Amino acid sequence: MPDPTLIPVKASSIDTWSYESDVLVAGFGIAGATAAIEAARAGADVLVLERLGGAGGAAAMSGGFIYLGGGTPLQNALGFDDSAENMKAFMKAALGPGVDDAKIDAYCDGSVDHFNWLIDAGVVFDESFWGEPGWEPPHSEGLMYSGGENSAPFNKVIPPAPRGHLPRKSASDDGEQAGGYMLMKPLIETAEALGARTLYDSRVQALVIDENNRVVGLTVRQYGVSIAIKARRGVVLATGSFAYDDTMLRDHAPRIEGRPAASIESHDGRAILMSQAIGAATAHMDATEVAIFCDPQLMARGILVNGRGQRYINEDTYPGRIAQETLLHQGGDAFLIIDELLYEKALQTESTSAIMRGTPKWVCESVEELENEIGLPKGSLQSTVELFNHHAASGSDPVFSKKSEWLTPITTPIAAYDLRGMTGGFTLGGLKTTVDAEVLHVSGEPIPGLFAAGRCTSGVCAGGYASGASLGDSSFFGRRAGKRAAAR
Amino acid sequence: MPDPTLIPVKASSIDTWSYESDVLVAGFGIAGATAAIEAARAGADVLVLERLGGAGGAAAMSGGFIYLGGGTPLQNALGFDDSAENMKAFMKAALGPGVDDAKIDAYCDGSVDHFNWLIDAGVVFDESFWGEPGWEPPHSEGLMYSGGENSAPFNKVIPPAPRGHLPRKSASDDGEQAGGYMLMKPLIETAEALGARTLYDSRVQALVIDENNRVVGLTVRQYGVSIAIKARRGVVLATGSFAYDDTMLRDHAPRIEGRPAASIESHDGRAILMSQAIGAATAHMDATEVAIFCDPQLMARGILVNGRGQRYINEDTYPGRIAQETLLHQGGDAFLIIDELLYEKALQTESTSAIMRGTPKWVCESVEELENEIGLPKGSLQSTVELFNHHAASGSDPVFSKKSEWLTPITTPIAAYDLRGMTGGFTLGGLKTTVDAEVLHVSGEPIPGLFAAGRCTSGVCAGGYASGASLGDSSFFGRRAGKRAAAR
Repeated sequence: MPDPTLIPVKASSIDTWSYESDVLVAGFGIAGATAAIEAARAGADVLVLERLGGAGGAAAMSGGFIYLGGGTPLQNALGFDDSAENMKAFMKAALGPGVDDAKIDAYCDGSVDHFNWLIDAGVVFDESFWGEPGWEPPHSEGLMYSGGENSAPFNKVIPPAPRGHLPRKSASDDGEQAGGYMLMKPLIETAEALGARTLYDSRVQALVIDENNRVVGLTVRQYGVSIAIKARRGVVLATGSFAYDDTMLRDHAPRIEGRPAASIESHDGRAILMSQAIGAATAHMDATEVAIFCDPQLMARGILVNGRGQRYINEDTYPGRIAQETLLHQGGDAFLIIDELLYEKALQTESTSAIMRGTPKWVCESVEELENEIGLPKGSLQSTVELFNHHAASGSDPVFSKKSEWLTPITTPIAAYDLRGMTGGFTLGGLKTTVDAEVLHVSGEPIPGLFAAGRCTSGVCAGGYASGASLGDSSFFGRRAGKRAAAR
Repeated sequence: MPDPTLIPVKASSIDTWSYESDVLVAGFGIAGATAAIEAARAGADVLVLERLGGAGGAAAMSGGFIYLGGGTPLQNALGFDDSAENMKAFMKAALGPGVDDAKIDAYCDGSVDHFNWLIDAGVVFDESFWGEPGWEPPHSEGLMYSGGENSAPFNKVIPPAPRGHLPRKSASDDGEQAGGYMLMKPLIETAEALGARTLYDSRVQALVIDENNRVVGLTVRQYGVSIAIKARRGVVLATGSFAYDDTMLRDHAPRIEGRPAASIESHDGRAILMSQAIGAATAHMDATEVAIFCDPQLMARGILVNGRGQRYINEDTYPGRIAQETLLHQGGDAFLIIDELLYEKALQTESTSAIMRGTPKWVCESVEELENEIGLPKGSLQSTVELFNHHAASGSDPVFSKKSEWLTPITTPIAAYDLRGMTGGFTLGGLKTTVDAEVLHVSGEPIPGLFAAGRCTSGVCAGGYASGASLGDSSFFGRRAGKRAAAR
């Protein structure tokens, strides 16, 4: 449906500014909160707009991973060596193709500082490491591998280090709070303590521009009325992804159309569109994070095959890599093959993903029977299992280099999970920004007065993903957006 | 490098219009030529700008396929049944995900008419069919399968028909002219005969807009000087893809960065950027056509394996599908395995792609030896060949449904071609347009006065490709752009 309210409004046409601030932040998720903190610390009067009735955004409902490295105090305390150079090498290899090298360089060089900044803001990381396969640690472990650094194809060429930093979970009266909540709580409190004002139930509509095309405010829909809010120094857009806008998904990322995950309904892409309306550039609008609904403790032990009965990835890698490969490159069809012994072993492990265990759809006495039950091409699964078992017997996997600790020949009884349609994700593409979070015009020049961070921008991920990269670049470049907007 | 000359120019700031026309067309390739013809026929005074010193664009250097169907006179004369419904079903299945259904519907419903229109404009199609694997027919055959309609996974579910229509080649004093040249020659002559004026060596810079943001002209760089040209009724952008702009490739389609193919250097994406500068929407900027430098006569007879020694596609399909699957989903690594007998058979066939035959890189006495020479994972190629041969012996391919006519067990001596790095392509994404070739603003409303067609737009292809789809939608929607621009 056409939406003319996206079209920028001229400042000269505005009779009344309902509110004013130095820095006006749209969205009170992690990018908005970190921008508000830095802007306030730089001496700016800050007003934060939030579409929902409370702060936190998608971040507060997430697991809470932040991708940090280069030798953070937590990495050091737990005995892991890391360097900014190794972190850069990994991110450039795993998050592409087409990564923004300058953005990754800045992110990695500033990562230890960013860790310390989060600590100062009140985020707590427990000094413990979780080394098992999983989407998240089962308790409050503060560090975990979250991108496949310690498995093929990276572990042999780039010294691995765990970089998934997870805030301490908390038990409250309402039950345990996830890491994302425990990350956002101190950030929101810090922003408010620094004097950032907030307006809830306030949804951004369009940019307000002056006669020189400088962004000087926003129009906002509030309780059914459209108002104008002035930004004396700058506007920071931090309204999240476009995972809930079906038209944008169809035009840019059709593989996740109708299957948004780890995002919230307010992620409608509006900040992208209203910036494009004044010529903002975008990047990697097709890129998506993808999740797959299956316990990595099961996946690491079994073998994953596509709709043709072929293995397609080392099953011990980061489950998000498995999910991307499944949905983006294997047509979304996957089956997890596991035998009774390995299944029982997986069940005995601790996992936050136990809810994803379910039960296998098929259980058979032979590989041939299983192949037939699933409907895989005749001979395909038998051939795959035979080759896998042949090498697994000697502890090797020359095809996918799965680590020897996960290599056991698959015996019978044998079972399979049906993972077709079990993937979903959120979008990673968006506004093209500089390393200082300035929104770029398609001419290549920054748009005066306009800054952005988080999932309405294209961040450190161009194609690949690691857990924590989204909260990571949202907070890292959110801070820069706040600083820069306040600096006018 | 920032380029502020992309920023739209206000009409009020222009002192002198160097030229004027009713309809101003940027680019004299196939989209521009067809737009010029229809605009002139509608009574408009037409001026066509071309960056190079002559007309034709990438179309004139291409093979010349136009994707047409639904029962064209040529299909009928050659005994092929087709319907608009079957054509729609195929295009929606093969050219996605994320296709523009309305655009494909219009394209298919209008396809027979479009064929007749091309004939009227002087394009000649020989009444002959080429049924062999190949990128193009070796002679002047007018019809060929060009999208994989007659192979898996489509042939069993959608009644196949050949839809690659190829203009008659011609022998001139300079040697044989390809189909693309013979397509463009009559279109250019028709446009000129209808009175369309041309300005060569004239490169578009920016859009000129009036006080209501209506597009009323273009600024143009001509012999080092910037001039303004007025469009009384409308501007049609038809300047081709962005395959030669490295920044845009890196931001949107990084897999073909540094490997443009079937495009020309003037394809710099500028029409996309200068339209985005006034808020134009884009779609499917990641989509790319891909070609692979290998003779389909060889590929259909052999088996293709990826870097893990696994087959990944039915080798008898449209070679562009093979190329896309190779580059976009298999990391660009491919090897063609063929035995001596099949190799000799392929050499005895006629093919325009004979130049792509070369010689195998490896020739061995056993599959194991070949696997080792290539450096494939131990046992992988042996397992693949064993499964393939097992089924091929009985004329079946349950894994990829390659047709039985191409199924022969592979024996020794056995050889392999190294197809790594042998892919390249051009971009398919661009401006988002209506079925009437109006350029859409991100608000969803057409931008007044601005029309576009061809590879600066997102056409019928969202992800997949069929040979002829690009010249097809460029000419089909080019005509609509010209008509609509003239209609003000």
